[in-house]
Amino acid sequence: MTIRDMLGRSGVVSREDALTSVYEHFVLPDLERETVHISHALGRVAVEDVRSPVDLPDFNRSTVDGYAVSSGDTFGASEAHAAYLPIVADIPMGSLPERDLAKGETMAIATGGALPGGADAVVMFEHTQPVDENHIEVVKPAAPLENVIQIGDDVREGEVLISSGRVLRPQDMAMLAGVGITTVTVFEQPRVAIISTGNEIIPADRRPTKGQVRDVNSYNLEGLITQAGGVPVKKGIIPDEYARLRTIVEESARDCRLLLLTGGSSVGTADLTAKVIDDLGPPGVLVHGVSVKPGKPLIAGLVKAVQGGAPVPVFGLPGHPAAVTVCFDLFVRPLLNRLRGESPKPVLRGRASYSVVKAKLARSVSSTPGREDHVRVVLEEREEELWARPVFGASGLISTLVKADGTVVIPVNEIGIEAEEEVEVRLFR
Amino acid sequence: MTIRDMLGRSGVVSREDALTSVYEHFVLPDLERETVHISHALGRVAVEDVRSPVDLPDFNRSTVDGYAVSSGDTFGASEAHAAYLPIVADIPMGSLPERDLAKGETMAIATGGALPGGADAVVMFEHTQPVDENHIEVVKPAAPLENVIQIGDDVREGEVLISSGRVLRPQDMAMLAGVGITTVTVFEQPRVAIISTGNEIIPADRRPTKGQVRDVNSYNLEGLITQAGGVPVKKGIIPDEYARLRTIVEESARDCRLLLLTGGSSVGTADLTAKVIDDLGPPGVLVHGVSVKPGKPLIAGLVKAVQGGAPVPVFGLPGHPAAVTVCFDLFVRPLLNRLRGESPKPVLRGRASYSVVKAKLARSVSSTPGREDHVRVVLEEREEELWARPVFGASGLISTLVKADGTVVIPVNEIGIEAEEEVEVRLFR
Repeated sequence: MTIRDMLGRSGVVSREDALTSVYEHFVLPDLERETVHISHALGRVAVEDVRSPVDLPDFNRSTVDGYAVSSGDTFGASEAHAAYLPIVADIPMGSLPERDLAKGETMAIATGGALPGGADAVVMFEHTQPVDENHIEVVKPAAPLENVIQIGDDVREGEVLISSGRVLRPQDMAMLAGVGITTVTVFEQPRVAIISTGNEIIPADRRPTKGQVRDVNSYNLEGLITQAGGVPVKKGIIPDEYARLRTIVEESARDCRLLLLTGGSSVGTADLTAKVIDDLGPPGVLVHGVSVKPGKPLIAGLVKAVQGGAPVPVFGLPGHPAAVTVCFDLFVRPLLNRLRGESPKPVLRGRASYSVVKAKLARSVSSTPGREDHVRVVLEEREEELWARPVFGASGLISTLVKADGTVVIPVNEIGIEAEEEVEVRLFR
Repeated sequence: MTIRDMLGRSGVVSREDALTSVYEHFVLPDLERETVHISHALGRVAVEDVRSPVDLPDFNRSTVDGYAVSSGDTFGASEAHAAYLPIVADIPMGSLPERDLAKGETMAIATGGALPGGADAVVMFEHTQPVDENHIEVVKPAAPLENVIQIGDDVREGEVLISSGRVLRPQDMAMLAGVGITTVTVFEQPRVAIISTGNEIIPADRRPTKGQVRDVNSYNLEGLITQAGGVPVKKGIIPDEYARLRTIVEESARDCRLLLLTGGSSVGTADLTAKVIDDLGPPGVLVHGVSVKPGKPLIAGLVKAVQGGAPVPVFGLPGHPAAVTVCFDLFVRPLLNRLRGESPKPVLRGRASYSVVKAKLARSVSSTPGREDHVRVVLEEREEELWARPVFGASGLISTLVKADGTVVIPVNEIGIEAEEEVEVRLFR
């Protein structure tokens, strides 16, 4: 097939339809799991619901600095009629005092201290007055349980602490530590194959001859996959030869959960990618072209994996660096999240997962209706206002992506955004 | 000193004043640097400006699929008066054709292909019509340089690609790869000491006796430090004994860039922390109490490091888990960013570095003027609207922090936020 034969074919679908097509054929594979120490669980995804083996706290705890009392002893206390109590002990942190509190007595207690038997409330220090070294006056009554965290108030034995499918955050590890759980079972980090293609592509450490370009997209993808919690697996640079591309795709489908082909910008590379994916179906290619700019030449589909295994999603990413970034965000990341075992709260699914700042658009940008435009912008400050200046230049330039701080999205049915309109800038991670 | 002696002392400053006090005494230490492969540079901070050793691209490149021409041959071309041109070659990807283009000729070229000598523009495929296998008609003129990226259009030799102090993103590694730079010099990842204190604190894997609690904050901090690009160094759990705490702080100031003390919630722990920091000054303690909730008991200061070294910032974080998270975000993270060598674009400094979603507040929350309130909220969806439901409960509970999806901030001078008002929820990472 010559370049001429390949030119000029296209069929474009919307972003939503592209995702729907892929999800229709996507089957979550049987994910591996491993048990890791909580210190190494950050960002990993919990396999099972984790329940508390204990009540937390397992003693009645003071939430203030003050005096442990039997609340009845303070009823009716006021500045005029203070309750006069002897201080019979200082409660040491980390243990109980040697004896219980008797009626008419008090003990000094610090935040986090354990209430002795006989005490059911804590009077804040500020609501007492010293009389002498061993006596105080309480000038405000304490209700039963006032300033006390009771046994099990934080967590009850058997309560679910961490739900299956949760991405573990710092506080989740703290919670587990708090109830004495120091290991957690998490899903594998999915391996994602990066297959660079295109006769013009050479490794970054080689010197190009005229017409050759160094492989940039595989480095961009390596970073994006890492940020998204996957394990990038570089499969090397494959020339536009059917047999070699097919072999590497088949091999990658056996040892990776998701395949990303990238590199070449030519129609020849794209056609070869599509043919290999199609021949390794069903279903093969599902999407060839999306109404997203940059990103239009996207190819998406699934190939058969090992005998009886779930089909493996494959993306043929456009060769332009900016298109790689946009397509990763819109199409690859959602699938990768599922392959990590993530089941976010439904309410958070699809909500902003990037930092956003508001800015005024520094100049008008036009767009073609029917196409979702992702415009790279640089942030600038003028007269204490934040402005987003569009970075123009072909999506084939990598430098525009490096200069940009983020993107502004022009929705699919808009014809553009006027200068000085307020826009939301999605910051690059 | 007894608990009684310690009770009831406080002096509270605003968040801004607290930060200002610390920055006044902060001196950036002489950071270590290392050279890493770009594949391992994600999230690291560049030491020096990196300049391009080459022009990119280093050949004139087509941005479309179509036909390379000498633009003069297409002047005046239209549907009615098409320019008739013989196709003398298909330009292979990755190399130049064997000969230059002569006047009156064309060559088929794909996106990313190299223009041959004699060609100065590319006619898009869509603006041509095939005549026979070896001839086309051009129906629209191509201006000189149309659809061509010229040598150096992306990057010029000597141009700064990456500025000193930039946190490296996926596209930055791609940019470096594109010009053949495969290693980059980055700053050390600062070691951050986590010192747990408090007589009541025991390791997570030990069973508490009454009054003891497991160390949760060091796990929360371990995660927060890792997310912020530091290296958490756990120094163990230290009882409330002056000599032992002083020794561990001195030791940590020698091998870490930043010290975080955490754990105990009692006034005894807090006083001891303050005394040790003060004795290891000047300047010692600068802040003891901030008008932030949760977070009020924060201690901040700097201690002397090794002879002639920069003073080392120390935070005595409140013992309550929610306060640890809030104080880390407001006070520790900005300093840690500087200790990573980060010099963000001024325009981005202090801008949102977290994901934000808008929601309606599910119930009114009141606040005390003069205090900045960080209210934990759970996100819920009702009738397709997003609602933020405040999670009440003492900041000493870890479970509220785990249930929460993020926080809503009530500014320092507000008395609260009414139910159904729209709020911005800062999502936890």
